[in-house]
Amino acid sequence: MGDTVNRQILLVEKPTGKLGPEHFRMVNGTMPETKDGEVVVRTRYISLDAANRAWMHGATYRAAVEANTVMAGGGIAEVISSRAPGFAPGDIVFGDTGWQDYAAVAGKHLTRMPKLKPMTHLLSVYGIAGLTAYFGLLQIGKPKEGETVVVSAAAGSVGSIVGQIARIKGCHVVGIAGGKDKCHWLTSELGFDAAVDYKDGATFKALRAAAPKGIDVYFDNVGGDILEACLSQMNNRGRIACCGAISQYDGVPSAHGPRGVPGLIVVKRLIMQGFIVMDFMDQSAAALADLQSWVASGKLKVQEDVIDGLENTPRALIGLLAGENRGKRMVRV
Amino acid sequence: MGDTVNRQILLVEKPTGKLGPEHFRMVNGTMPETKDGEVVVRTRYISLDAANRAWMHGATYRAAVEANTVMAGGGIAEVISSRAPGFAPGDIVFGDTGWQDYAAVAGKHLTRMPKLKPMTHLLSVYGIAGLTAYFGLLQIGKPKEGETVVVSAAAGSVGSIVGQIARIKGCHVVGIAGGKDKCHWLTSELGFDAAVDYKDGATFKALRAAAPKGIDVYFDNVGGDILEACLSQMNNRGRIACCGAISQYDGVPSAHGPRGVPGLIVVKRLIMQGFIVMDFMDQSAAALADLQSWVASGKLKVQEDVIDGLENTPRALIGLLAGENRGKRMVRV
Repeated sequence: MGDTVNRQILLVEKPTGKLGPEHFRMVNGTMPETKDGEVVVRTRYISLDAANRAWMHGATYRAAVEANTVMAGGGIAEVISSRAPGFAPGDIVFGDTGWQDYAAVAGKHLTRMPKLKPMTHLLSVYGIAGLTAYFGLLQIGKPKEGETVVVSAAAGSVGSIVGQIARIKGCHVVGIAGGKDKCHWLTSELGFDAAVDYKDGATFKALRAAAPKGIDVYFDNVGGDILEACLSQMNNRGRIACCGAISQYDGVPSAHGPRGVPGLIVVKRLIMQGFIVMDFMDQSAAALADLQSWVASGKLKVQEDVIDGLENTPRALIGLLAGENRGKRMVRV
Repeated sequence: MGDTVNRQILLVEKPTGKLGPEHFRMVNGTMPETKDGEVVVRTRYISLDAANRAWMHGATYRAAVEANTVMAGGGIAEVISSRAPGFAPGDIVFGDTGWQDYAAVAGKHLTRMPKLKPMTHLLSVYGIAGLTAYFGLLQIGKPKEGETVVVSAAAGSVGSIVGQIARIKGCHVVGIAGGKDKCHWLTSELGFDAAVDYKDGATFKALRAAAPKGIDVYFDNVGGDILEACLSQMNNRGRIACCGAISQYDGVPSAHGPRGVPGLIVVKRLIMQGFIVMDFMDQSAAALADLQSWVASGKLKVQEDVIDGLENTPRALIGLLAGENRGKRMVRV
């Protein structure tokens, strides 16, 4: 409060290959004014997501981010002033604040959030990550007790919750992650039945050993070779929940899709279904009630990876794309 | 009747590339005996299907066909003698008779067929082809009135029925087929709204012109490049019914799947679902009633391509894989 400078991080150039710090620049902007229908907010926590990188490729479920504009990104923010109905100073909201201290956002694009503690949970287990895991697994994957569920990017914000919910539902759960440490964490701390280190090579064999009865539900965060390996080990009538394709986001997307499409889809009667968490928001109250009860009972562990300082947001995203985070990564502004 | 020789066509070698006449040989076998639980049948019509070729690659929803055995294939046959309950001489049945004059088949693997005329309709519109089109389009594709439905191999046995049912349901229907003649036939005779000739090059552009509002349902018989072109033109929440992958059957399957998997599946919230008609057989009575009423009213035209002589079965299949048939191809034995 009382600031007169609004620090902003611009995307100065759209990357054609790997994303690097040279694609961003921090500038001192001016404080936004509160126009009719808008709310001015102070950003508290910025969410880092692989989707940030996908937005640079072009329009997806949202417009593409453009060069020389403030980098887009969701965040938890506090209302400073409001000329939109339903918002008052001190309210906590979620919205696309962008990577900046202050933002003016249309009231209709903001969601009021409960004032729970820690506030970071609003971005992790009770935010997009938790709801994505919840709806994607339960409504798209539809796991039944005793089935085998495999999730990729399993140590990430969504994957770590997917695996734990699958365990709560009585499934045999296999996580795919990069590196021994992450894999050990999945099985020793989060209760996964097995973990496959894709950096170890031999993913196909390791997956077969970890999922000896085949795969009934694959929650796909990565696409590419890992999707291909899972496709070939799916059981008849298996479900693949397509949540993202991290492997394709940073750098030049691969020229081809996974082998087995559509051959294995036909023969095994598979369902591959893409989803966006926003499509389920009318059911979020029930989902949040489930998530809160699991967290309260200790069945669902929340892992967060909080980095301090707006100026560190670019490297936080670059590191996320390289897979250095465990659980939900965010920046405290 | 009264025959003592059972002509049989053997698959003498599994093809590693394109299927040719050299992979088959006709031999004179002996008449089968009627063992307990079995029925001996006289083959009347042999069904030719792209799936025949897929079976040579390995186990699918059925065991692989093996070298030096009678080539597998479904057919309509007449019961000669029976030691299985429910079957009597003169009955008309459908089953995997193989490519031969006479076969001994377990009663439980035969389906009694109604004695309707022409008998060939039991293999086309009232057989696997018609039911595949019916269930695949309506239960997997789930088209709504006014939506755009695209079907590949549209002049084939399944595709020609898919397109006509989609028209009956009030959809804008686009067929993809090889050659000007087939395309003209689809629009002038079968009532398709538009047709795209994939042999003409520029499939992507032609498809865009034929389906200007994008694709809501794609009934995929071919996989490969055409699936890739359709994927990129799907509308949000579109459905892709995966019925087969003819483009991948004959020769060496392509090393990769279509681009856009899983990226476009996520962003557009698509559903890709494979199916096998057998999974819907408990609902076949209702389907047959619909199909019969459409045929009776002239809304659904039945196109058959009947070739005479068991000895011509290999070239009938080879020609089918090259796309020379219109509608359901079969051999009169």
